[in-house]
Amino acid sequence: MSEQHVAMYAGSFDPPTYGHLDLVERASRLFGHLFVGIGVNSSRQPLFTIQERLDLLVPLCRPFKNVEVVSFSGLGVDFARQINARVIVRGLRAATDFEYELQIAHANADLVPEIDTIFLPTRTNYGFISASLVREIARHGGKIERYAPPEVCVALRRKFSDEFASK
Amino acid sequence: MSEQHVAMYAGSFDPPTYGHLDLVERASRLFGHLFVGIGVNSSRQPLFTIQERLDLLVPLCRPFKNVEVVSFSGLGVDFARQINARVIVRGLRAATDFEYELQIAHANADLVPEIDTIFLPTRTNYGFISASLVREIARHGGKIERYAPPEVCVALRRKFSDEFASK
Amino acid sequence: MSEQHVAMYAGSFDPPTYGHLDLVERASRLFGHLFVGIGVNSSRQPLFTIQERLDLLVPLCRPFKNVEVVSFSGLGVDFARQINARVIVRGLRAATDFEYELQIAHANADLVPEIDTIFLPTRTNYGFISASLVREIARHGGKIERYAPPEVCVALRRKFSDEFASK
Amino acid sequence: MSEQHVAMYAGSFDPPTYGHLDLVERASRLFGHLFVGIGVNSSRQPLFTIQERLDLLVPLCRPFKNVEVVSFSGLGVDFARQINARVIVRGLRAATDFEYELQIAHANADLVPEIDTIFLPTRTNYGFISASLVREIARHGGKIERYAPPEVCVALRRKFSDEFASK
Amino acid sequence: MSEQHVAMYAGSFDPPTYGHLDLVERASRLFGHLFVGIGVNSSRQPLFTIQERLDLLVPLCRPFKNVEVVSFSGLGVDFARQINARVIVRGLRAATDFEYELQIAHANADLVPEIDTIFLPTRTNYGFISASLVREIARHGGKIERYAPPEVCVALRRKFSDEFASK
Amino acid sequence: MSEQHVAMYAGSFDPPTYGHLDLVERASRLFGHLFVGIGVNSSRQPLFTIQERLDLLVPLCRPFKNVEVVSFSGLGVDFARQINARVIVRGLRAATDFEYELQIAHANADLVPEIDTIFLPTRTNYGFISASLVREIARHGGKIERYAPPEVCVALRRKFSDEFASK
Repeated sequence: MSEQHVAMYAGSFDPPTYGHLDLVERASRLFGHLFVGIGVNSSRQPLFTIQERLDLLVPLCRPFKNVEVVSFSGLGVDFARQINARVIVRGLRAATDFEYELQIAHANADLVPEIDTIFLPTRTNYGFISASLVREIARHGGKIERYAPPEVCVALRRKFSDEFASK
Repeated sequence: MSEQHVAMYAGSFDPPTYGHLDLVERASRLFGHLFVGIGVNSSRQPLFTIQERLDLLVPLCRPFKNVEVVSFSGLGVDFARQINARVIVRGLRAATDFEYELQIAHANADLVPEIDTIFLPTRTNYGFISASLVREIARHGGKIERYAPPEVCVALRRKFSDEFASK
Repeated sequence: MSEQHVAMYAGSFDPPTYGHLDLVERASRLFGHLFVGIGVNSSRQPLFTIQERLDLLVPLCRPFKNVEVVSFSGLGVDFARQINARVIVRGLRAATDFEYELQIAHANADLVPEIDTIFLPTRTNYGFISASLVREIARHGGKIERYAPPEVCVALRRKFSDEFASK
Repeated sequence: MSEQHVAMYAGSFDPPTYGHLDLVERASRLFGHLFVGIGVNSSRQPLFTIQERLDLLVPLCRPFKNVEVVSFSGLGVDFARQINARVIVRGLRAATDFEYELQIAHANADLVPEIDTIFLPTRTNYGFISASLVREIARHGGKIERYAPPEVCVALRRKFSDEFASK
Repeated sequence: MSEQHVAMYAGSFDPPTYGHLDLVERASRLFGHLFVGIGVNSSRQPLFTIQERLDLLVPLCRPFKNVEVVSFSGLGVDFARQINARVIVRGLRAATDFEYELQIAHANADLVPEIDTIFLPTRTNYGFISASLVREIARHGGKIERYAPPEVCVALRRKFSDEFASK
Repeated sequence: MSEQHVAMYAGSFDPPTYGHLDLVERASRLFGHLFVGIGVNSSRQPLFTIQERLDLLVPLCRPFKNVEVVSFSGLGVDFARQINARVIVRGLRAATDFEYELQIAHANADLVPEIDTIFLPTRTNYGFISASLVREIARHGGKIERYAPPEVCVALRRKFSDEFASK
């Protein structure tokens, strides 16, 4: 792949975890330019606003020179086309993930044939980390330092203390 | 990824199918140089010899300028290191494939951390094609033209007529 | 099975897709009479009302002479008994579907032992199509013509432009 | 394991089923003391209140001398530590369950390494029974006597007749 | 389906089990005529010869008036076409079975589009029974009476005592 | 469970890996006495003889005071009954493992109802280690020190150098 090749890694990043960052790092080594896209999902209510997630993710991705963090709405594959991505990068943790991901990949290939999807398997030590699990542990005051960077942990704690305060 | 980045796509190719060639084509677009490695597997008895598989696969991969067909023995990940591959490419058809592939990918990452594994999902119309299925259909005289290139079909027919003749 | 044998194919059909219609066609060839049942699911909020789904599905099923489209509430297996169905027909796309479907089939066999469940595998080119995916693509203005019949596409577009207008 | 070894079997028990009771019985034979923990899950709206579930489950577990029914909030693994449990017991019905359970087990082992998780496979005749299925059947007036004890069936019927009455 | 509709249920039946017979019974109720086909698989060495399996299966299927037991070689789908079957019936026990079965069903649909495949889920109490498990238990002198009919149990015992005798 | 409770952990241990030893350690903490049973499997040709595997496994299990290493032939569940085990312990790495294990557990519960099966999930860092993978890596001269204890590594190297020498 020539140096100018563009890839997209999209997700909710609600919040970003070490699992996400591991994928960003590995994908950034594989492609000339990597867009990390925070998707605006109208149907689900996120914990962090798009702006909050941008504020967390942009500095975390700064060490990777060819990585650009953006937000987008609409279908991921449409956004991938707009930014001229040739590849959509997805992480895979488990076989049940895979079936859903395969359906999405097939639909995307049908909608935009010139963009391909690749899957990166999560590292063994990140396999059980998901944003929803980190939220769940944080909600109950559990230790999250091994699953997410310090600034994310701070934001999670503040979010949940706000939540309790407002009740 | 810079243009000189090297990837390896290894398998038995016993025989090569349209499913394999689809992966070769897609992987060749993603990387600067792609080695297609025919593995010498001591424990299983192949239908085609290594030389026969090279003779089939080399001309089939000629249209892809950055693809090189080679044979190797030993662990795939060791061979990947010898040829300076940065990426191992694997095809994924089904969730059960994935679990086995994930174990191999984790073992490979443990053995050679600097090489990453990526998975390419098979296209919907190739999802049910496997070399073993094509062999099985050919063994029983079924139609295989839609699953493998003409030269492979010829080789399969000859192989099985030889087999019957020698009985 | 004698010609008067009755089968039921139930679902949400929210909206009907080419995947559904492929199953209706194949099941209608297997059984003497096929009821296509649109289930009223009290817990989930559908995009289309029952009446809208009937209005879409009835003309789409008219070409199949032995197919009758109805709506029902309550358990599918109870409805199947009321219409004297001997068989419940279900589509299967993926292994994860299967586990859930197997549990339902076992529960149904326990509740009404004289009714059996059969699974029809989706065709390769429909494997990634689901009503929820079609809704999702339509919601974002993507192309849905290859996944659902024209009248469904029109209804989806109208539904989402209404939705935006009412915001 | 010495006689004083403590295990925890946690869940929603909304409502308790014969599947749950089979697991309680089997786990109670394996460990010196078994806590059956009814989790307060803030994000999902249960059918039965915590108190109602306690009122159902406490008498059902009375025959097992070493079993104690309690409710708890927060993470299950934190509660397990508070009650000095050495083992978390989980039931497994299907492969898709397993992947999710494995992630939770890995997260728990990471959070509290001294507590281990064991899985008990559900018996063949309970494999399709889940609390949500029993609720669904009861909601539609179906027969639930083979899936849950008489007192649970009574409570379910009363709950749903209340629900209809209040509409 | 009209009364003259023909279905095929093929397998190795090495030996026939109660799981097989349950499927024969259920499939025979669904179709006008059911061929039970014992496949001659050249690559695997069976425990019972084709003739021995015919001798076991023919009397076991006699109670089902519309069932005919035959042996065949070659691809199952080719045999299905020769006997004018419109449907191939397959049993499904587990999700991992399903993926393999789906690939075969897709390949068969591609080879002979006019023949469809349907899956019947195994009953809960037969889910763990397979011919290979029954062989394995019998080989070690375990009790097999609940998994296979008396005549099969006798044949298995004789087979294994012969085996030991000939050593 | 009272202190005298007996469990069995059976397998091929061809050769023993760190994955096996992790399970032995965890199971030995859960039960009063743990039999580690090396099964004599007549149908598969092992790399190490039963005696060689005993010679490797006995000293490796010596640190666990309540663990006893034995070999057995026949069905595992029959052996479990002979040694008065109340529990069969199995390791689980992946969802595909689980389906097979569930079938065996159900068959065992049917054959010997008083013995229960529990599953221990493998630790994240051992998830990809299997005896067959370790054999495969060793066969090709790869590094195995992180997957198996030193004495096993030595035995593997000697085994494979013998193998090459004898060719």
